[in-house]
Amino acid sequence: MNDFIFHNPDKVYFGKNLIGNLPRELKKFGDKVLLVYGGGSIRRNGIYDTVTSLLKEGGFSVFELSGVEPNPRHATANKGAAICRREGIDVILAVGGGSTIDCAKGVAATVVSDTDDVWDLVKAGEEIERALPIVAVLTNAATGSEMDGWAVISNMDTNEKLALGGSGLIPRVAFENPEYCYSLPAYQTACGAFDIFNHVLDNYYLAGDATFDMILEFQEAVMRTVVKYAPIAMREPKNYEARANLMWASSMALNTVLDAGTVHGCACHAMEHELSAYYDITHGHGLAILAPRWLRYVLNETTAPAIARFGVKVFGTDASLPPMDGALAAIAALETFGFETLGLKGTLTELGIDDTHFKAMAEHACGGSVITGPKALAPADVEAIYKMCL
Amino acid sequence: MNDFIFHNPDKVYFGKNLIGNLPRELKKFGDKVLLVYGGGSIRRNGIYDTVTSLLKEGGFSVFELSGVEPNPRHATANKGAAICRREGIDVILAVGGGSTIDCAKGVAATVVSDTDDVWDLVKAGEEIERALPIVAVLTNAATGSEMDGWAVISNMDTNEKLALGGSGLIPRVAFENPEYCYSLPAYQTACGAFDIFNHVLDNYYLAGDATFDMILEFQEAVMRTVVKYAPIAMREPKNYEARANLMWASSMALNTVLDAGTVHGCACHAMEHELSAYYDITHGHGLAILAPRWLRYVLNETTAPAIARFGVKVFGTDASLPPMDGALAAIAALETFGFETLGLKGTLTELGIDDTHFKAMAEHACGGSVITGPKALAPADVEAIYKMCL
Repeated sequence: MNDFIFHNPDKVYFGKNLIGNLPRELKKFGDKVLLVYGGGSIRRNGIYDTVTSLLKEGGFSVFELSGVEPNPRHATANKGAAICRREGIDVILAVGGGSTIDCAKGVAATVVSDTDDVWDLVKAGEEIERALPIVAVLTNAATGSEMDGWAVISNMDTNEKLALGGSGLIPRVAFENPEYCYSLPAYQTACGAFDIFNHVLDNYYLAGDATFDMILEFQEAVMRTVVKYAPIAMREPKNYEARANLMWASSMALNTVLDAGTVHGCACHAMEHELSAYYDITHGHGLAILAPRWLRYVLNETTAPAIARFGVKVFGTDASLPPMDGALAAIAALETFGFETLGLKGTLTELGIDDTHFKAMAEHACGGSVITGPKALAPADVEAIYKMCL
Repeated sequence: MNDFIFHNPDKVYFGKNLIGNLPRELKKFGDKVLLVYGGGSIRRNGIYDTVTSLLKEGGFSVFELSGVEPNPRHATANKGAAICRREGIDVILAVGGGSTIDCAKGVAATVVSDTDDVWDLVKAGEEIERALPIVAVLTNAATGSEMDGWAVISNMDTNEKLALGGSGLIPRVAFENPEYCYSLPAYQTACGAFDIFNHVLDNYYLAGDATFDMILEFQEAVMRTVVKYAPIAMREPKNYEARANLMWASSMALNTVLDAGTVHGCACHAMEHELSAYYDITHGHGLAILAPRWLRYVLNETTAPAIARFGVKVFGTDASLPPMDGALAAIAALETFGFETLGLKGTLTELGIDDTHFKAMAEHACGGSVITGPKALAPADVEAIYKMCL
C-alpha cells in the first residue's frame, strides 16, 4: 500500500435547487467574471439564461469566452487569458461539460503565469499550483473535470492533446444539477458514460497493486453505477435518478477518493488522447474502442485474476471460471457494454481512421518513455493496440 | 434523493513517511503553536518526541495543553482557549485520538468567539464557521474527528455530552500514520472499530431513504473493512495493513463521502453520548451495546429489508431468508461481532450501569424533541432501548 495525500477542497452543490448559491460563491472571489461556454447548447436549454440572470442580479461585470470546442484548443484558452488580463477578471465561471471546464483551467493557469500561451505551460509539464479561481456549472457527466485538477488541451497545429495538472486547477466550487443533462443526446450520454467508466478501469488494480479493499470495492461500485444507469439515461434522457447517478459517478471517479493507496493509472486515456488529437473524435468513443483491446493486450497469468474479478463484480460474469477464462469473459462483457448497450461503433475503421499515423501517435502517447500500468507500454505496444482497434 | 453539499477541504497525509511535511503545513498558519494531547501515551510511544523535534527544527514557539480526557471536558478546552488568547496562538496541533482532536476543536472555536467558555457555544448550538486552524496527528482509528466538522464535549458538572459542529472545525491538515496505532491495546482498538462501524450503520438507509446505489455500497464496503480488520489489529497490533484499513475507514466514515444524497443519521450516537456523560464509559463500547438493541427496536415490516440486506452484505448472512428472518439474522451477527469477535461486554449491567438515570438520560438524548432515523425516537423509546441493554 502506497502513502498518499488526499486533498480535494472543491465545494460541490449537488441537486435541483442549489444554483441560487452561485452569486454568493462567486462574490468570494470578486466582481469581474469571465463566463466560459461552448457551442451554444446552454443557450438552447435555458442554462445560459439562468446563469446570466443570477450574474445580473448579483451585480457582476461579465465578460464572455464562447465557442469552446469539444476538444478545447490552446488558441481558445489563450483568447480567454487575454480577456482576463485586459479586464482584470477575478474569477472564471465555466458553464458546460469537461471541455469547457478544461478550457477555463487553461485560461486560469495562463493568466497568473509569465506567458500568454497556455501551450508553454502544457509543454513545461510543471505542476500548476496557482491559477485564477474557477467555478464550474456542469452540464455533462463525463470527464470529472468539475472536481479534479486536470485539463486536457489540444493543439491542432501540432496534432497534440496534452494534460495540464495541479492543485491550483481544482475548481473552488462546482454546481452539479442532473437536470442540466436532460438535453444531452444519447450519443453524448454514452460517450460520457464510457469516459467515467474508463477513469476507474484505467486505475483498477490489474497489476495486483495493493490498495484498500474498500477502495477496490468503491471502484467496482462506481463502474456498476455506470453500467446500470447509462442505458437508462440514453433511453429516458429526463430520468433524474439516472442523470444524478452518472453525474456523481463522474465526480467520484476522479476526485481522488478512488486513488487512496493506489498508483493512479491512465493507459487508455493516454492512448486515446492521440486519437482525439489526430482525428478530433469524441474522447469517450475512442476509449470504448481501446479499452477491451488494451485489456486483451495486457492479459497474462498475472493480470488474469484481476480482469476476471472485474468481470464478476462489474458485469456479473461467471465467478466459477478459471482466471484466464474469467478474464476473457470480462473482456467480452466490456465489448458488449460499449458496442451494444451503449451502441458505440466498435472499430476505428468505422470512424474513418486507418493506420497512417499510428506510429507517430504511439510515440506521442509514450512521450519519450513508456505508459505505466499493469504492463508498461512502449511505442511498439501502443501501435499494436491501435492496430487491434481497426 | 436529497440535494447535498459536499465540501471537505482537509488535506490528509496518509502513510508511513509523511510526517516530515508537518512544519511546512503548520508554517502556513503561523509560528505559535498550541500542542494538545492526552494522558501521556504519546510520550511513551515516541510520537511526542517525533513531533516536538519537528517543531523545534521548524523554529516554532510551542505551548502545551496536555491531559485531555478520553471524554474531553469543557473545562480543559477552556484552559486551552485561555492559553491561546494569552499567547496569541496561530494554529492548534492536536496529537492523539478523537478526544484530543475534539478538545482542540473546542479550543479553536472558543478563541475566536466572544465567550471564554466553550459550553456557551455548545449550548447555543450554532454552526461554527470560524475557528483557529487545527492540524491533527492521529493516533487512533475511531471517531473520524481528523476529517470531520464535529467535536463532542463533556460537561461533568451537568452530566452532559454534546456536539459542537461546523465547517470551521474541519482540520485543515491531518497526518494519518497507521504505525501510530501500534501501541493501542486490544480493548481500545475494539472500541474504536465499533465507533467507525456505527458511524456508518447510524447512517444506513434503514428507513428506505433514497441514496445513490454506489454510496450504499461504499457504506457496506467500509463496514466490511471494519469487520475484517478489527480482529486482525486486535490480535496483531503491529499489522500495518489492518491498522491502515481501520484508519482510512475511520476517516471515510465521517468525511461526508458516505452522506451524498442521504439524511445523515446518528441515533445510536445520540443515545450513547448520555451513557458516556453519566458514566464516563468508552464511547465505542456503549455503541456496541446499544446498536443491536436499537436495530431490534426499529425492526418492522418497513425496515426489515434494509436490516436484512445489511446482514447479507456486511456479515454474509443468508440472502435467501425472508426479510424479517434476515433482519433477525443480521442483528444476531452484529451481536456476535461486538460481543464475541471484538470481545466487548454485552450489557450495561456488566459495566456497572443500572436504570437509575435512564429517564433523565432519555430526555437529554432527545433534546426536547425526537431522535430522527428509521423510527423517530421519543424519550419513552430511548428509555425502552436503554432497558433492553441491561
